[in-house]
Amino acid sequence: MAVENRILQGIGVSPGSAYAPAVLVAPPVQAPADEPAPSDANSALLEVKAAFESVATELDARAAAAPKTAAQILSATALIARDKGLHKAAGKHLAGGNGPANAVHLAVEEYVLQFEALGDYFAERVTDLRDVGARAISVLLGLPAPGVPTLAQRSIVVALDLAPVDTAVLDKALVAGIVTQAGGRNSHTAILAAQMGIPAVVHCAGALDIEIGTALSIDGDTGEVLIDPEPEIVAALADRDAKRADVLSSSTGTGSTSDGHAVALLANIGGVDDAVAAAATDVEGVGLFRTEFVFLSAKKAPMLQEQTDIYTKVFEPFGHDRRIVVRTLDAGADKPLAFADLGEEENPALGRRGLRLSQARPELLQTQLEALGAAASATGADVRVMAPMVATLDEASWFAEQVAAAGLPTSGVMIEVPAAALSARHVLGPVDFGSLGTNDLAQYTMAADRMEGALSDLLDPWQPAVLSVIKAACDGAAELAKPIGVCGESGGDPLMALVLTGMGVGSLSMAPSKVAIVRFALSRHSLQECRRLAALALSAPTAADALDAVRTAADAELVAIL
Amino acid sequence: MAVENRILQGIGVSPGSAYAPAVLVAPPVQAPADEPAPSDANSALLEVKAAFESVATELDARAAAAPKTAAQILSATALIARDKGLHKAAGKHLAGGNGPANAVHLAVEEYVLQFEALGDYFAERVTDLRDVGARAISVLLGLPAPGVPTLAQRSIVVALDLAPVDTAVLDKALVAGIVTQAGGRNSHTAILAAQMGIPAVVHCAGALDIEIGTALSIDGDTGEVLIDPEPEIVAALADRDAKRADVLSSSTGTGSTSDGHAVALLANIGGVDDAVAAAATDVEGVGLFRTEFVFLSAKKAPMLQEQTDIYTKVFEPFGHDRRIVVRTLDAGADKPLAFADLGEEENPALGRRGLRLSQARPELLQTQLEALGAAASATGADVRVMAPMVATLDEASWFAEQVAAAGLPTSGVMIEVPAAALSARHVLGPVDFGSLGTNDLAQYTMAADRMEGALSDLLDPWQPAVLSVIKAACDGAAELAKPIGVCGESGGDPLMALVLTGMGVGSLSMAPSKVAIVRFALSRHSLQECRRLAALALSAPTAADALDAVRTAADAELVAIL
Repeated sequence: MAVENRILQGIGVSPGSAYAPAVLVAPPVQAPADEPAPSDANSALLEVKAAFESVATELDARAAAAPKTAAQILSATALIARDKGLHKAAGKHLAGGNGPANAVHLAVEEYVLQFEALGDYFAERVTDLRDVGARAISVLLGLPAPGVPTLAQRSIVVALDLAPVDTAVLDKALVAGIVTQAGGRNSHTAILAAQMGIPAVVHCAGALDIEIGTALSIDGDTGEVLIDPEPEIVAALADRDAKRADVLSSSTGTGSTSDGHAVALLANIGGVDDAVAAAATDVEGVGLFRTEFVFLSAKKAPMLQEQTDIYTKVFEPFGHDRRIVVRTLDAGADKPLAFADLGEEENPALGRRGLRLSQARPELLQTQLEALGAAASATGADVRVMAPMVATLDEASWFAEQVAAAGLPTSGVMIEVPAAALSARHVLGPVDFGSLGTNDLAQYTMAADRMEGALSDLLDPWQPAVLSVIKAACDGAAELAKPIGVCGESGGDPLMALVLTGMGVGSLSMAPSKVAIVRFALSRHSLQECRRLAALALSAPTAADALDAVRTAADAELVAIL
Repeated sequence: MAVENRILQGIGVSPGSAYAPAVLVAPPVQAPADEPAPSDANSALLEVKAAFESVATELDARAAAAPKTAAQILSATALIARDKGLHKAAGKHLAGGNGPANAVHLAVEEYVLQFEALGDYFAERVTDLRDVGARAISVLLGLPAPGVPTLAQRSIVVALDLAPVDTAVLDKALVAGIVTQAGGRNSHTAILAAQMGIPAVVHCAGALDIEIGTALSIDGDTGEVLIDPEPEIVAALADRDAKRADVLSSSTGTGSTSDGHAVALLANIGGVDDAVAAAATDVEGVGLFRTEFVFLSAKKAPMLQEQTDIYTKVFEPFGHDRRIVVRTLDAGADKPLAFADLGEEENPALGRRGLRLSQARPELLQTQLEALGAAASATGADVRVMAPMVATLDEASWFAEQVAAAGLPTSGVMIEVPAAALSARHVLGPVDFGSLGTNDLAQYTMAADRMEGALSDLLDPWQPAVLSVIKAACDGAAELAKPIGVCGESGGDPLMALVLTGMGVGSLSMAPSKVAIVRFALSRHSLQECRRLAALALSAPTAADALDAVRTAADAELVAIL
């Protein structure tokens, strides 16, 4: 089917533009509906296990030849293929009278449900899991493995979603860009494309209707995909990319506005590898260390010493001067932990998560704080500890007491529940700082699930109501003269960074790759100009109007490279 | 086990106090774990059906002797016992090798899961369903039916939860009060106790640990249950009740503050019966007609004529002068409709519900608006239509267009998403009025599920952050000179009603039984005094402080009867 609309809109996840013909990634092999039942379930299981092992072996071989990050993902995917639980599930379906390909399919879909229920990190691994299944099925059916076709020229790869093995083997010289119809900001496609420097657009409705060979121009910043674009548009995008590369190459040092108002530019990290990578850049420290990644893979609560070792390795690279803001365990029914399960919930995002879980299981928090204290002492690092999902003054007081009792000097709270933002002048009283989690704040303010693609318009970070909640939090912090930062996605958007600075935000934490453009954006505006941009955004009636108003009023040299 | 703490705290759901010894309702009969499999599943199914029919027959007999509301509930419960789907489910478990009592138990629990998934109204019917199951099991096992023991003296009935059949047969002369450990504000216990005028406390942790014969004093207003109370406390409560009855007997007419500022006092209704009952009182109209009750029992979308007939019957009793505010279909994954299912959601409360569903299925809304227009024309009633779950200006504009296209003169929006409250000055622009849904507004502002008992402290309506969101909505409405009302639970709380009036709310909608005390509360305060109470509540750091401040500053004669 031809695409009628000449512009498709997705989410830009890897910056830069590309112009090339489209190649389409064929969908994975399906298990045949008429597959006969196995004559012997046990021998069929051996056949299935052999297929999984063949998939794992091939993935390991590719991992050996791939660069480090890609290799890690390929090895992790090979582990899925070797998962005994997955084999056992397939065995169950063979015993139930399903043929080998269908048994693999059913076992994989069972796992998909579990991964999706686990949310966030696990939900994003569903593509890997299905890829393992499709590969095993192709082995069982004697068909070629699914994946990206061999490229004869520079092309834009269009797919439903890319499995890690697909992205890992992409030849950067031939892949001009990537467009996926599914996937999200945290999908493998997004992460790897950004790392490889390939412009990419994900979550692009209609992408699969693009015909092979159609000329595409994609913009990995705005998320626009143009079908058969005018030459002038292609040239303008290429020009913008060149200008940006030029401008950003000279962006270094600490963050500040053109008139010298300091805005600390910090990194979001999830563990030791991230810490080492971020510390090697000129970020001013860590604005969000998501400690739940330390816990997520554990079957039982990690011991004091184990946690202390991990935190020590995270803190060390930042020396004594660069701050590290640590968020305590953020788990709940949406990110369930085997050792801290409070049961199923109807609405996990509105349930007993974050600090609420810590209050129900205080020993988990105490051990974590003790480990953080020990690691801080061992390294002499500037460690600041904050709690997730705080809504009230009473909760903030309780957390501040726990942190003080553990001998840690600085406590703070995430401001991601609207109540905490609107009551910031009370909630920040017992602690030293606040950190706005703009993603959850938007989710609750708009009453729209972050994971629900159909509601993405409501979750536009430019929604004036969300901006007004952020403003209320900044005003409350100012009243108490307490510092407030941002560690949500908004902090890495250069125009939004200006608005946040204008509202009173004093630090911005983001993926390290976004620091340069945010630093440049700040350097082009005075604090007074940032305040004017904030006022413009706050008075707009809709999200689109807010973005338009700020884009129009912002520095032309910045806008030219966005 | 004896109760250590001498005060238990629940939720007061039927006003007044009581002092009497406790009687405990025995738990229902359990299906035996060692029940043998049936030798013939078909004859066992006949036995099970006979047991269900025996339960239904007894319930019908009780219904015939009971007053109207109780009779309706008993008859509805008899219908559950005669449900063919339930019998079929039991048959499936018999065929699976379960004994009759266990088959009934399993079938009921299957239905419980479905009812709970349906949420709200259906979830509250779970007690009825389990009661039917327990009664059928007692018939199958030849044991006496579970329920309230025969009372020899005036007593306070203490139970896990009361089935409708229990409450319906309570002898008002002997039941001084009711305490349940489970249940919620909308449980049968709550509804029937209030209707029978029996003081009641529900959701009272520790209630089942009370020993039989212990003297209890319960307060159906504050939700306090005192164990072995001091005589002075008992006397003070009795005195308060007498004073209140005296004061309220003279409360009639329209609502207004002591200096004549009008505040319309309206009823929340769910259908024709409610409409007839409310119209017979001196309420000034309907502030919330929940039309989803018209849809909930339907297998397919009700036809235009069917809807028109129902709406006509709802409007007629209110004549031409009393307003009827109609909320359009409020459904979604939390209240799924067979004919408008958009699929399962991870967080239904944050999903595609309310107006979001109407936008995905516009033909449902169009038929409903057409039917409302026809019924309004037929009756000449003052009908005002509002949309649930509006978050943005764009949504409000879309809804206003739909209402205008249907020829209805007045449109409004529910303000239950924090974004709508915080952007009221934009969102109310295209419509004629706003109506605050305080329950959902609190749920989203505090990021705490309304249905999650463990989070009830966060959902205290006196949370200052929730009050500040309400204030923002009132300020936005005032800026546009658009009327704003309240149709959530807060409207029926006399102290909160004063605070809401002080913020600028011009109408309060509630259960009709709560109108008298709210009317009295308003009559004891000037608008300026209400504004002062609102300022006190808004500046408090915690919910407890807000309530204390208002209670201390409010009129002493009102506080004396609370």
